[in-house]
Amino acid sequence: MPEPKPSPAVPIKGGNFLIVGGASLVGSATAEAMLKGEAASVVVLDNFSQGTPEALRHIEGDPRLRVVSGDILRLAQVMDAMDGVDGVVHLAAMMTIAFDSDPRRGIDVNVIGAQNVIEACRLKKIRKLVFASSNAVYGYGPGVVGDLVEATPFHTAGAPPAAILYGASKIIGEQLCRDAYRRHGLNYVVLRYSTVYGERQHYRAANAVLIMDAHDRVRGGQPPRVVGDGSETKHFVYVGDVARANIAALEATATDVAVNLSGPAPTTTGEIARLVIELSGAKMQPQYVEPEAGKVRLTSGGAWRIDHALAEKTIGWRPQVDMREGIRRLIVWRDAQGR
Amino acid sequence: MPEPKPSPAVPIKGGNFLIVGGASLVGSATAEAMLKGEAASVVVLDNFSQGTPEALRHIEGDPRLRVVSGDILRLAQVMDAMDGVDGVVHLAAMMTIAFDSDPRRGIDVNVIGAQNVIEACRLKKIRKLVFASSNAVYGYGPGVVGDLVEATPFHTAGAPPAAILYGASKIIGEQLCRDAYRRHGLNYVVLRYSTVYGERQHYRAANAVLIMDAHDRVRGGQPPRVVGDGSETKHFVYVGDVARANIAALEATATDVAVNLSGPAPTTTGEIARLVIELSGAKMQPQYVEPEAGKVRLTSGGAWRIDHALAEKTIGWRPQVDMREGIRRLIVWRDAQGR
Repeated sequence: MPEPKPSPAVPIKGGNFLIVGGASLVGSATAEAMLKGEAASVVVLDNFSQGTPEALRHIEGDPRLRVVSGDILRLAQVMDAMDGVDGVVHLAAMMTIAFDSDPRRGIDVNVIGAQNVIEACRLKKIRKLVFASSNAVYGYGPGVVGDLVEATPFHTAGAPPAAILYGASKIIGEQLCRDAYRRHGLNYVVLRYSTVYGERQHYRAANAVLIMDAHDRVRGGQPPRVVGDGSETKHFVYVGDVARANIAALEATATDVAVNLSGPAPTTTGEIARLVIELSGAKMQPQYVEPEAGKVRLTSGGAWRIDHALAEKTIGWRPQVDMREGIRRLIVWRDAQGR
Repeated sequence: MPEPKPSPAVPIKGGNFLIVGGASLVGSATAEAMLKGEAASVVVLDNFSQGTPEALRHIEGDPRLRVVSGDILRLAQVMDAMDGVDGVVHLAAMMTIAFDSDPRRGIDVNVIGAQNVIEACRLKKIRKLVFASSNAVYGYGPGVVGDLVEATPFHTAGAPPAAILYGASKIIGEQLCRDAYRRHGLNYVVLRYSTVYGERQHYRAANAVLIMDAHDRVRGGQPPRVVGDGSETKHFVYVGDVARANIAALEATATDVAVNLSGPAPTTTGEIARLVIELSGAKMQPQYVEPEAGKVRLTSGGAWRIDHALAEKTIGWRPQVDMREGIRRLIVWRDAQGR
């Protein structure tokens, strides 16, 4: 008789989890949420090429947390980190800016690295994998406009190579999950994050860096710079909401599905600059400038929004923190850290 | 003073060429056309995992042809094969059926292998690369309908993992070409082949195999099987037309561009079966059947065609051989070979 198939629902309470690429913006918030949710143990695997020990400082005293230095390009290291683990959250990835400076490295990490994590999950009989994908799977350029739902195709015309490579690498990761489910019954949920921002924000994301740069300028007494007329759409999601989504995806019975995560509403580049000015307590106007040569920009064909209705239906998640509150929290954190 | 940039036009006459994955349907026709076009030398690199020595039998006596056994996963082997070469045609790839049986192998060959070929072209200062892509970059499923032009996005909703992985791997290859052009000035033309068929046809292509299977059945005295009602669109291109396009792309001044190759008009699965019956001199009707479980099928949202107007504008190419003539030639060849 075949073994009964394990349920795709993996409760946090009492469970053991691995966060791959966990010394990061999303990883640190997810680890914290898991510990608060009474997980028995949380392992963070990171090669610290992008992640930092400081990202875990707020939870480092917790005896249930174990930080392992290891690389997803080494299958055995990933498998070792999965000993006794019930659920895995895979976050380790290069984004567009990294693909722009080194496309081969991006492919190694996002394609071969993702393959290793997925194969390790199968080999170690992990009960569920949450795979962090991106709204980059809808692409960029003039084709991107209106509502982006999960069936929206990948627009590449007019987009820079690095952005297309990043999006395609995430499409491949998603499909390797689908393939592993079909071939081996590996339960998984793909979460297509929009631009994540919040406490422990870094400078590596082509869109989230807009908030960081604006805040750096305002603190230096200079007006934030906005490329163009400030009407460009961006859609962010607060890191705490993403951490809740990772947990919701693990705890839900949903499997073999990909859903969007996005904040309550899209915003514009001009609005971001104005919010940062206001929440910093400054009095100034953004400075509107021409695009900088050599810098990767992610454009669209007009206003758009990332629809997250399917996430609510599938894993019972909806965002709680809007841009004003999220940017306020980011600024409070930066000021408290003196960074 | 920097060196003057070489012209992106590489004439066949007197030139030296490498065909990567050349012991193949397209490779054998391209090598033959290059030899007829008075190339000084043609090197065929193949690891013979899919390619066969027989594919080159019709030209093996030519002293200008050199066949090298080597693997694109070994950068040094690719570079050795490029000694003294002016232009490269990169054909080595796994297609959807191969991705279905071994997705990891497909990614190795189509992503890491393509990276190696592109890097070798740069390191060996190759004057132009023709990169064989596919109409798989437009995807499959309900979103695929109407005219497919070069700006059409990649449709993945409702498509099988293997087909999406294949399409995404080709998107990555294309973008690595774009990246190498921007970073290193590597001249290239991407040709997005539709389904290639003709003399020396194999059974490895999910669509071209329809012709082979139909012909095998008719020769065995059985009616060809057509899935559904026979109205499914397919768009083929004759192998001799593809060989001409590879040469046109090398000889054109065009660079840093991707264009579609397709036959004069699309067809349907029913029409293919009827043409095979007629051109085999048989009298029968196709047999309409249900889809076979476990077999990868490439579906669409209705009738569609692959537009090749940009190829004419860019590299001066248009298809010459229609389905009736192409299938006739394939059948003549199979009968002559007793295969």
